Amino acid sequence: MKHLVVVGGSDAGVSASLRAKELDPSVDVTMVVADEFPNYSICGLPMFLGGEVGDWRKLAHRSEQELAAAGIDVRLNTRATLVDPERQVVRVEAPTGAMDLAYDDLIIATGAEPVRPAIPGLDLSGVFLLHHMGDGLQIDQFIRTQDPQRAVIVGGGYIGCEMADALTRRGLAVTLMEQAPAVLPTVDPAFGQRLGDRMDSRGVEVLAGVRVQAIEKTDRGLRVIAQPDIAKTADLVIVVVGVRPVTGLAEAIGIPVGTRGAIQVNREMQTVIPHVWAAGDCVETWHRILGRPTYLPLGTTAHKQGRIAGENVVGGHRIFQGTLGTQVVKVFDTVVGRTGLTEEEAKAAGWGATTSETNALDHKAYYPGALSLHIRLVAERGGGRLLGGQILGSYPTEVSKRIDIVAVALYHEMSVDGASDLDLSYTPPLSSPWDPVQMAAQAWRPA
Amino acid sequence: MKHLVVVGGSDAGVSASLRAKELDPSVDVTMVVADEFPNYSICGLPMFLGGEVGDWRKLAHRSEQELAAAGIDVRLNTRATLVDPERQVVRVEAPTGAMDLAYDDLIIATGAEPVRPAIPGLDLSGVFLLHHMGDGLQIDQFIRTQDPQRAVIVGGGYIGCEMADALTRRGLAVTLMEQAPAVLPTVDPAFGQRLGDRMDSRGVEVLAGVRVQAIEKTDRGLRVIAQPDIAKTADLVIVVVGVRPVTGLAEAIGIPVGTRGAIQVNREMQTVIPHVWAAGDCVETWHRILGRPTYLPLGTTAHKQGRIAGENVVGGHRIFQGTLGTQVVKVFDTVVGRTGLTEEEAKAAGWGATTSETNALDHKAYYPGALSLHIRLVAERGGGRLLGGQILGSYPTEVSKRIDIVAVALYHEMSVDGASDLDLSYTPPLSSPWDPVQMAAQAWRPA
Repeated sequence: MKHLVVVGGSDAGVSASLRAKELDPSVDVTMVVADEFPNYSICGLPMFLGGEVGDWRKLAHRSEQELAAAGIDVRLNTRATLVDPERQVVRVEAPTGAMDLAYDDLIIATGAEPVRPAIPGLDLSGVFLLHHMGDGLQIDQFIRTQDPQRAVIVGGGYIGCEMADALTRRGLAVTLMEQAPAVLPTVDPAFGQRLGDRMDSRGVEVLAGVRVQAIEKTDRGLRVIAQPDIAKTADLVIVVVGVRPVTGLAEAIGIPVGTRGAIQVNREMQTVIPHVWAAGDCVETWHRILGRPTYLPLGTTAHKQGRIAGENVVGGHRIFQGTLGTQVVKVFDTVVGRTGLTEEEAKAAGWGATTSETNALDHKAYYPGALSLHIRLVAERGGGRLLGGQILGSYPTEVSKRIDIVAVALYHEMSVDGASDLDLSYTPPLSSPWDPVQMAAQAWRPA
Repeated sequence: MKHLVVVGGSDAGVSASLRAKELDPSVDVTMVVADEFPNYSICGLPMFLGGEVGDWRKLAHRSEQELAAAGIDVRLNTRATLVDPERQVVRVEAPTGAMDLAYDDLIIATGAEPVRPAIPGLDLSGVFLLHHMGDGLQIDQFIRTQDPQRAVIVGGGYIGCEMADALTRRGLAVTLMEQAPAVLPTVDPAFGQRLGDRMDSRGVEVLAGVRVQAIEKTDRGLRVIAQPDIAKTADLVIVVVGVRPVTGLAEAIGIPVGTRGAIQVNREMQTVIPHVWAAGDCVETWHRILGRPTYLPLGTTAHKQGRIAGENVVGGHRIFQGTLGTQVVKVFDTVVGRTGLTEEEAKAAGWGATTSETNALDHKAYYPGALSLHIRLVAERGGGRLLGGQILGSYPTEVSKRIDIVAVALYHEMSVDGASDLDLSYTPPLSSPWDPVQMAAQAWRPA
C-alpha cells in the first residue's frame, strides 16, 4: 500500500488527495493541515464579511466528514516542520506532540501567506491582514464587538475591491487606497479607473496613486498616513497587498525556488527531490502564452495542479497545460474579467501588441435590460494572434463566461480574426448574432 | 467599378453587402429586398408578439438609413424573378415595373420560408404561419383587433416554445402541440421533457407526441384535431413546424441543391455558376464535426456566411469554418443551449458515443442565488473526443455563454478530458473553481 502524505489542506492539497484516492483507492492518504479549516473557500471571505454568506461554515468546499468519507486521514492543527527526503519521513507537530509520518510520496501544498508591507503599525489593534480563514473570523469578531464605523483598506487588488464592497454592505464608510494609478492593477488602468468610478458611486472613497507610509494609533482612531500628503482616520484597517508563497519546508531540503520565490516544479508537478511533489499557491505556475514559469496564485490553478499531482503520484503522467491568468471579480454590480496578457505584459514579453476597446450591448437593444459591455482585446500587431482580453460589465451580462470564450480561444492560440469563425449561441435576450466578443474581435485594429 | 447585386435583405444579404463595402468602398452594391423589411431580426418576433418589445420597428438590426449611409442601394418591395448568368443580369419586378440589374457578381441570399404542413385548414382566418416580419405584424394585428383568448401552437421547436411564452405573457391560454416525444426536439428528450414541465408550471398545456391532422372552423372557434384522439378549440392557431430553403432563383439556372433541398455552395460560398454566390438560410451548411454539408438555418450562420461571401466577392478567399449547430433559447425563465451533436446524431454519423448528465450549481452554494445547471455532454466512447453538449438552467446562470465554452472546445476538437485543462474564470458569485462545464466533463464516463 502506497503512503501519500499531503502537507496543506486547501485547494491544491485536497484536490491532490481526492484525485489520488479516486484513481487508486488503495492509496493511504494523510493530509496535514496547519489550522482547523481544511478546504475552506478563502475566496468567499469577503462575501462572508459583507454579510452575504450568513455562516462561515458554509465556506467549506467540502466538510471534514466528506474528506473522511473519501478515505482521507485529515490531521488538523498539525504543522509539518521538517522533511527527511532520505528516510522519506515528514516531522509534524500535532496537538498530541511531535511525530514522524512516513511517505512513499509527499505533496507540498503549503499555499501562500499575505505580504506584510514594511510599514509601521501593522500590529495595532484594529489592523488586519486577510488571507486565511482565521483572519476572516477575527475581522468578523472585531466588527461585531467593536462596531467600527470607518474602514481603510490598503491595497486595491481583487480582495481589496471585494472588501470595499463587503464593508460598505456591512454599513462602514470605506476608503480604499491603492498605490497604482487605478484600482485592480491586473487590468488596464482604463478599466481600473472605470471600476473605481463605479465604486465611488456606491460610496467608497477610492484613492489611487497613493502609497501608505504608516498606521498610527491616535485618540480619534487609527490614522493611515500616505503619500502624497493624505491621512485618513478609521476604526478598522485591512491590509491586502498580495501574497507570497510559503516555501520553508521545501527550501529546507534544497528544492530551488524561482519566480517571486515560488517552488520550482516541472509540469508534472514534481520537484527536484525524488517522490516530493508540490502544487498550488506555493509553486511557480507555467504560463501557457509566455511559455515560461510565472507566479499567479489562483484557486482555479491550485485545483488543477493539485489534481495533476494526485494523478501523477499514482502513476499518471498528466502535464499541467498552463495558466492564462484568467480571473474575474464582482464588486457591487460590476464584474471585471481578464485572461491572457495585457498589452503591457505582452510588450514586456517581446510581442508587438495592440489593444482595441469595443463597447457593445450584452444582448439585442430591443429586448429589455440590455446593458453595456466594455471589451478590450490584445493581439499581436503582425500576425493578429490573440494575446489577451478584458471585459467589464454589469452582473447580469455574462462577463465571466464571456471572458471564458476568450480564454478557450487563447488556449488554442487563435487569431483575433479567427474569433469570427466561432459558432457561438444567440437568442435576442442573451446575445447578438455576433457575440460582443466577436464584435470586439472584428473591431480590433493592428494600428 | 464592380457591380454587386445581392438578392435578399436579411442577415446574409446585409452582412455580405456591408462586408463588401467595408473591404472595397468602390464596389457598387444593389440589394434587392422582396418586402419592405430589410435586415429585421425575425428572431425577435416572439418577443415582439409577447409584448416585451414595444415597437416592431426596434427589431431592425440596422435601419434603412444606416444601410443607405453605408452606400448600399436598397430596393424594397422588389422581387428577383430570373437570373441570366450569360449576360450577368438579374430581372426584378420593382414597384415601378420590371427591370434588369447587371452584375459582376451576384449573391443569392433568399433565405427560407416556413414549411406548410399537409393539413387542411391552414388558410382559415385566425390560422397563421410565422417566419417573416409580415407574418408577425399580421398576428399582432389579429390579437389586437380580435382579442383571442385561447391559442394552439402547432410545433414545439424553438419558435413554438418562444411563442408559447409570448402568448402566455399576452394573456392567452396556450396549448402547445409537438409530434416528437418532447418539445424542443433539437435537444435530448430528457431536456425537452424538463422544459415542457417548466412550461406547464407556467400555465402552458404541453401536448407532446401528438400529430395534428386538421384545423376546422366551428361555431366555438378553430378546432385543432390531432392524433392520438385530441381536439382543442382555440381562437388563434400558429403553425411553426420548421423552414425550408428558398431556391427557385438558383435552381432555375441549374445550380444544384442538396441536403433538405438547399443550394449547394463550396466553403467560399460559391455556387457552380461563375460569379454567382449564395449564403444564409437558402444554402447547405458545412458541419464542422460531421465534415459534410447539413441544413441548419440560423441567424448566426447566415451572418457568417454573408460576411464571407462579401469578403470573397471583392477578392478574398475566406473559408467558412463550419457550423456546430450552436443554439440557445429562452422560454420563460429557462434557458436551453446546445452545440455539436446529440448522442443520436453522433451515432447516426458512425461514432460510438455516450452521454453523461451532470447537475451542478451555477456558482458556489454559499453565495446567495445559486441555481441548478443541468449539463449533458456527448463524447466518443473510445478516444473521448468531445462531440456535443447541452445545458439547461435558469436565466441568470450564464447557460448561453457556458454552452459557448463547449462550442469553442468543440471547434478545436478537444477531448472531454481536456476540458479540465482550460483556464476558466472563477469568483464565488459566478462559478466554482471548476466551472460546471468542467465538472460535467470530469463526470463523463465512457460506459
